[in-house]
Amino acid sequence: MLEESADPSLTNGVNTDGLGQTVANVKANPELGFCKFRVRNEWVHGDENRSQTLDFYAAGSEQQHKKNFHFQAGEPGLLEGSDDGANPVEYLLSALSGCMTTTLAYYAALNGHVISKMESSYEGDLDLQGLFNLDPDVRPGYQNIRVHFKIQTDAPTEELEQYYRFSPVYDVISKSVPVEVVIETY
Amino acid sequence: MLEESADPSLTNGVNTDGLGQTVANVKANPELGFCKFRVRNEWVHGDENRSQTLDFYAAGSEQQHKKNFHFQAGEPGLLEGSDDGANPVEYLLSALSGCMTTTLAYYAALNGHVISKMESSYEGDLDLQGLFNLDPDVRPGYQNIRVHFKIQTDAPTEELEQYYRFSPVYDVISKSVPVEVVIETY
Repeated sequence: MLEESADPSLTNGVNTDGLGQTVANVKANPELGFCKFRVRNEWVHGDENRSQTLDFYAAGSEQQHKKNFHFQAGEPGLLEGSDDGANPVEYLLSALSGCMTTTLAYYAALNGHVISKMESSYEGDLDLQGLFNLDPDVRPGYQNIRVHFKIQTDAPTEELEQYYRFSPVYDVISKSVPVEVVIETY
Repeated sequence: MLEESADPSLTNGVNTDGLGQTVANVKANPELGFCKFRVRNEWVHGDENRSQTLDFYAAGSEQQHKKNFHFQAGEPGLLEGSDDGANPVEYLLSALSGCMTTTLAYYAALNGHVISKMESSYEGDLDLQGLFNLDPDVRPGYQNIRVHFKIQTDAPTEELEQYYRFSPVYDVISKSVPVEVVIETY
């Protein structure tokens, strides 16, 4: 799907010719859009466990990363952990942040808009009564998530507000948790 | 909330006296269970962005990690990336893996069950027609996720199948995406 080009057209660091060709390929052959992503986890003890990415399926065949990526999860001392890794609910916010950011950069590029700087912050409310099974009316997961973007760009805010809705992780989380997103441009 | 003990009672590497005391404290004072977790993200270019954990709120006051944790997100070459970080949908599976694993270890410990080994694998189906806005009937996020645990334990499988449902990340994802979980014990 990646189209090599001697002079790729880069917007926001994205090869828009290549990305546009990938979109066209999936449109012409929808089965090329089907992907499987995979992770394996090994528990160490208590709060500590390690996960890594594996080969994935995309563009009609099995694919390998240049190298697999490794993650260590932990819990802070307040939750009887040794705080040697981010906790899983922080990994969830990190996943959301990465996905919304990349989706904004890619969609802006495909629409000819330049983003020169983009930062964002994420905060999620969680009530341990849910995890500890103390109140059946309290869910274990996040109750609300707030997202704030600051983006230096020529793209109209109304367009940016459409782009992030196609983020796969935003789609998964926002269909389960109310996610309030504010985009500030300059 | 962490109760210091000269001789902590450890099961599965979890200080069950301390954890049980934390549960009792939240039961007695529900406001102690309210947490806010936070992440900040900075876009680098194209597919590459970096996130980090920040201070969090728990047990009635602001808390600091021993150190903040840093993550680099990327995309594989097929998606016009340089593959220098896991992609965000892999981070999502990693978050799910860490949370289900820790929740199983903690709940087993609180119920007096020993886990001596625990591994798990995760696979999610994703159709790029959703991300690329090619078909309004195809969601951008995962369509299905399959989870397979292998656990060496004295805990009955029926109990393990209850424990993971209190995982905050499982709660968030499974209310949006069908998650099929198989637990194999030995």
